Amino acid sequence: MERHFQQDLELLKSNVIRMGSAVEQNLFNALDAVMKNDAALASRVIASDGTINQFEIEIDNMVVDLLALQQPVASDLRLILAIQKINNDLERIGDHAVNIAESAYRLTETPQDEPLMEIPNMAKIAKEMFQQALDSFIHLNALQAQSVLESDDRIDALNRGMNSKVIQFIKNDMKSIEGGLELLRISRNLERVADLTTNIAEEVIFHTQAKIVKHHAAEEKQKKQ
Amino acid sequence: MERHFQQDLELLKSNVIRMGSAVEQNLFNALDAVMKNDAALASRVIASDGTINQFEIEIDNMVVDLLALQQPVASDLRLILAIQKINNDLERIGDHAVNIAESAYRLTETPQDEPLMEIPNMAKIAKEMFQQALDSFIHLNALQAQSVLESDDRIDALNRGMNSKVIQFIKNDMKSIEGGLELLRISRNLERVADLTTNIAEEVIFHTQAKIVKHHAAEEKQKKQ
Repeated sequence: MERHFQQDLELLKSNVIRMGSAVEQNLFNALDAVMKNDAALASRVIASDGTINQFEIEIDNMVVDLLALQQPVASDLRLILAIQKINNDLERIGDHAVNIAESAYRLTETPQDEPLMEIPNMAKIAKEMFQQALDSFIHLNALQAQSVLESDDRIDALNRGMNSKVIQFIKNDMKSIEGGLELLRISRNLERVADLTTNIAEEVIFHTQAKIVKHHAAEEKQKKQ
Repeated sequence: MERHFQQDLELLKSNVIRMGSAVEQNLFNALDAVMKNDAALASRVIASDGTINQFEIEIDNMVVDLLALQQPVASDLRLILAIQKINNDLERIGDHAVNIAESAYRLTETPQDEPLMEIPNMAKIAKEMFQQALDSFIHLNALQAQSVLESDDRIDALNRGMNSKVIQFIKNDMKSIEGGLELLRISRNLERVADLTTNIAEEVIFHTQAKIVKHHAAEEKQKKQ
């Protein structure tokens, strides 16, 4: 029974990793589509979201089966519940990748080329965070997960900066309003991707250290306001 | 054991309902703050998010304890996993209420009074959806949950309409750009509240009918684009 359970748990973990890779590819392609003004690549991301949704449902079903048939306790139970949350976070990151791809697509239809301002920088940080978070889950490495949390503040700051930059940009040239709003959408979606990636890292830390860090960042943020 | 389990399950359910009421109050207050230009009310919502986060952690811990100690199977197991997801959805709706309150606060600082366009209408629908979803959970009523799903399309349409209205508004009066962007933020947060409320309704339907409706709406939406 125990050996069977460990095999099932490994299968579950490897499915989450496969899903993570699919989400990573969609996120990276969506950002490339923004950067390269590539409508075809954007369409590909939008079309492939179904695969990710399918992954989520399968992993959810595996979780239920594993809990029902094996009735794990203690650390194993917590790991499975963490996996269920990570599964949900990954699916939502996939949704944001689709949103970014949709903005990329609409940007290819605006008359002028918009300067991307902080987007390339935010994209670079978000990609690194995602890779680190996925890696920290694969190796259940709390130290690596911790570094993800630290990057989240940088994305938040850049996202806030985008707001005033886009407002200035629109004020200088009214024709850029539609494009400017798309850039704000992309920026906000990247900020959400960073938040969800932070959630994944927090689940890894919580599981490895059994420590609640989840609402710490939110409370810190609130204090600062 | 069985009787003990049913008592624990009832306690878990009643905690989710209490959390739902707290989230409802924050959401309603945030929307009132927008409508009445009330900075003090907005501040109160922002300050009370900690209570909701605390609820989420407590319910999460109860879920883990219940799974570990009672090892429920079949329908009970699925209900507990549904509760865990609903808990997470409620906490996120609480976050959006805070975002709306923050926008309400900033709107009180803009020089002119902005027309709220579709916001009051969206707020009314979102509030009804939330009440219906919470009620459908309390009574595990799939029919009532189904009606929540139908309202989601109306919010989506109004949110899309807000975009072109705000663009026109800004084009007419450049001084309204900051206020216009806040209105778009509120609209988008309401759209997300409606999505999360739909998730809750889907969990209720899924639990009562053991039927996956979760990604159906997303696929429908994608087909229409």
